[in-house]
Amino acid sequence: MKSLLSFFARAKKMAAQGKKVLGFTLTSPEFEPPAQLKKYAASAYKYSFPYLPAGGDFQLRQRIADFYSRSWGKKFNQDNVFVGAGGKEVIFVLLSTLLEQGKQGQEVIIVSPYWATYPKVVDILGGKKVFIRTSDKNNFALDVDKIEKAITKKTKTVIINTPGNPSGQIIPEDKIRKLAFLAKKKDVIILFDEVYEAYDYEGLFVSALKHFNKNVFCVFSASKSFSLCGWRVGWGIGDKELVKKMINIQSEITTSPNAISQLALKELFSKPKQIQEYLVSINKKAKMRRNLAVRLFKKNKVDFVYIQGGIAIFVKIPDSFKNAFSFAEKLLEEQKVSVAPGEFFGWKNYFRMNLASSPKNIREGIKRIANYYK
Amino acid sequence: MKSLLSFFARAKKMAAQGKKVLGFTLTSPEFEPPAQLKKYAASAYKYSFPYLPAGGDFQLRQRIADFYSRSWGKKFNQDNVFVGAGGKEVIFVLLSTLLEQGKQGQEVIIVSPYWATYPKVVDILGGKKVFIRTSDKNNFALDVDKIEKAITKKTKTVIINTPGNPSGQIIPEDKIRKLAFLAKKKDVIILFDEVYEAYDYEGLFVSALKHFNKNVFCVFSASKSFSLCGWRVGWGIGDKELVKKMINIQSEITTSPNAISQLALKELFSKPKQIQEYLVSINKKAKMRRNLAVRLFKKNKVDFVYIQGGIAIFVKIPDSFKNAFSFAEKLLEEQKVSVAPGEFFGWKNYFRMNLASSPKNIREGIKRIANYYK
Repeated sequence: MKSLLSFFARAKKMAAQGKKVLGFTLTSPEFEPPAQLKKYAASAYKYSFPYLPAGGDFQLRQRIADFYSRSWGKKFNQDNVFVGAGGKEVIFVLLSTLLEQGKQGQEVIIVSPYWATYPKVVDILGGKKVFIRTSDKNNFALDVDKIEKAITKKTKTVIINTPGNPSGQIIPEDKIRKLAFLAKKKDVIILFDEVYEAYDYEGLFVSALKHFNKNVFCVFSASKSFSLCGWRVGWGIGDKELVKKMINIQSEITTSPNAISQLALKELFSKPKQIQEYLVSINKKAKMRRNLAVRLFKKNKVDFVYIQGGIAIFVKIPDSFKNAFSFAEKLLEEQKVSVAPGEFFGWKNYFRMNLASSPKNIREGIKRIANYYK
Repeated sequence: MKSLLSFFARAKKMAAQGKKVLGFTLTSPEFEPPAQLKKYAASAYKYSFPYLPAGGDFQLRQRIADFYSRSWGKKFNQDNVFVGAGGKEVIFVLLSTLLEQGKQGQEVIIVSPYWATYPKVVDILGGKKVFIRTSDKNNFALDVDKIEKAITKKTKTVIINTPGNPSGQIIPEDKIRKLAFLAKKKDVIILFDEVYEAYDYEGLFVSALKHFNKNVFCVFSASKSFSLCGWRVGWGIGDKELVKKMINIQSEITTSPNAISQLALKELFSKPKQIQEYLVSINKKAKMRRNLAVRLFKKNKVDFVYIQGGIAIFVKIPDSFKNAFSFAEKLLEEQKVSVAPGEFFGWKNYFRMNLASSPKNIREGIKRIANYYK
């Protein structure tokens, strides 16, 4: 199957040929990053030449630990924190640490719909994917019992995503608590991908860090929280021994993320109040866009899954198309609108649309999409 | 076995406790990066927020292609170039592409002494290491016939390093030509790690790019060429189809290297003449340090392997020590001098000393080391 980035590249190519394409394929927030960062990056420059330690700058790790300790009422320190080249590298290194090389049939449980990268990473590392399908009848609600039943002696990790991409769903606290307990009981690491932590529109989001134990591992990113996709910095919080192993792996893959970015973010994390204010401001902007999209899709009688959080809306393709690929290709060709076909996320009758775009683009994009539902 | 970075961390910790440690463990050049980069990084900032494409910024890839086309007289274009988060990620992604998951016994040929990361990457990816030992009697001269004999149907790649770290040797052009021919003949990718291309003290270095064919893959880095270790940018040049596969893998690991760094380097590569002048200037500085170290080790009757290139000198441990670990630990404890034990590179009776340090440090370091050879 083609990759999502190749689909994105095609839209880019059309744009380069002078065709005005409205792009909603990738989930990259287009908000302004925190204003102070420009100054921080400029002063970080002259300290950016030597290697930073694998696992991340010590002080950055400590400040991230402090930030999340305050947020979720558990005590973390720098040894719990792993800094990677984006949430993606954090996930890759975690799975690389958990899947032992040379062993066959090691299982990774993935809830569907899923972020396209999860199954690809399992493939690259030679693991076995075990999908747990949810239903669009009840907004992809997670069944914790189903996950418990799927865990075997071969299970190396379970990947949970909240707020969900592309599902748009937030897993309620009682289920998060049960999952954290389950991880401990079964002695399996559960990876909670929480990179969309800032995008909770109904006050539902609770990080698994609130119910932390040594089998819980949470991932966050500067890409999604600070609109810094190009900087490639993400972080994970988990058990100290696990983090230590991850650092050994990372030191053979990338050494440590870019130093300008790490040092600038270190300054940002010395101002937790400013971060909180910033996160509130982007949540407000994103919620406005969510409300706009929901209203317009409803008005145009387009079926979609109601979005509680995240920046992606999962929309049903028109009945006249046999799958999302063919719809997305038609949409790109005829309407110059680029979305992500649901096949990438395990659902061929849905497409994903990024909502962290401008309200003007969202309006125009949905108008063009709606043409196919009349 | 402990990792090299953990050894480095120990020296760092001693330094943090107020002990003045002379550090020669890692091979990070301590020269000033090209002066123009500060301006380029500052203007790159505001374009650094969105994702850059996997494989690297298109224009950066084209300019790197142009630079090496001019240097070695072969025609490369952007499709031949892969940009990674350091030479390390380029190597990791290449091996990840070549080693098929789920298959047992896939072999990677590594010439010893080797850079510590090569065998670790093979371990992480579940491959089988096949070491080819060279001899310190003839300065680790490479025997191409031995490599040819070692290649089997299971061989996925051969890793060649020139200028060598820690060997300090440059592989002469006739052998490079033979290796490139051998790669084609056996249809196996040979990875030429040429990150120390700038550090050739005898005019011997010829890149395998000069004898390029689709089985040749060369790696370079901003860390070593521009003293930008913290920036995490490296690049590889190889067959287009291979590069395409590598991009698919990278897009699931790190997406693309940091955008500030890529965009600043893109500007730098628009001035190839300035790069050449810069490389000449650091070569001169490094050669002066090489000459100083060679003179001082000789004067103190310390055995070492004569260094033709690179920034690391490989030095024999004193006869009274049973291995390099015990010597390096003693040296750190008693003399506050940190070097890299040869065990990391496959040679327990040698240690590696980084020479891209200040002449003052080199003088003082060798003085303290020489105490053990009296």
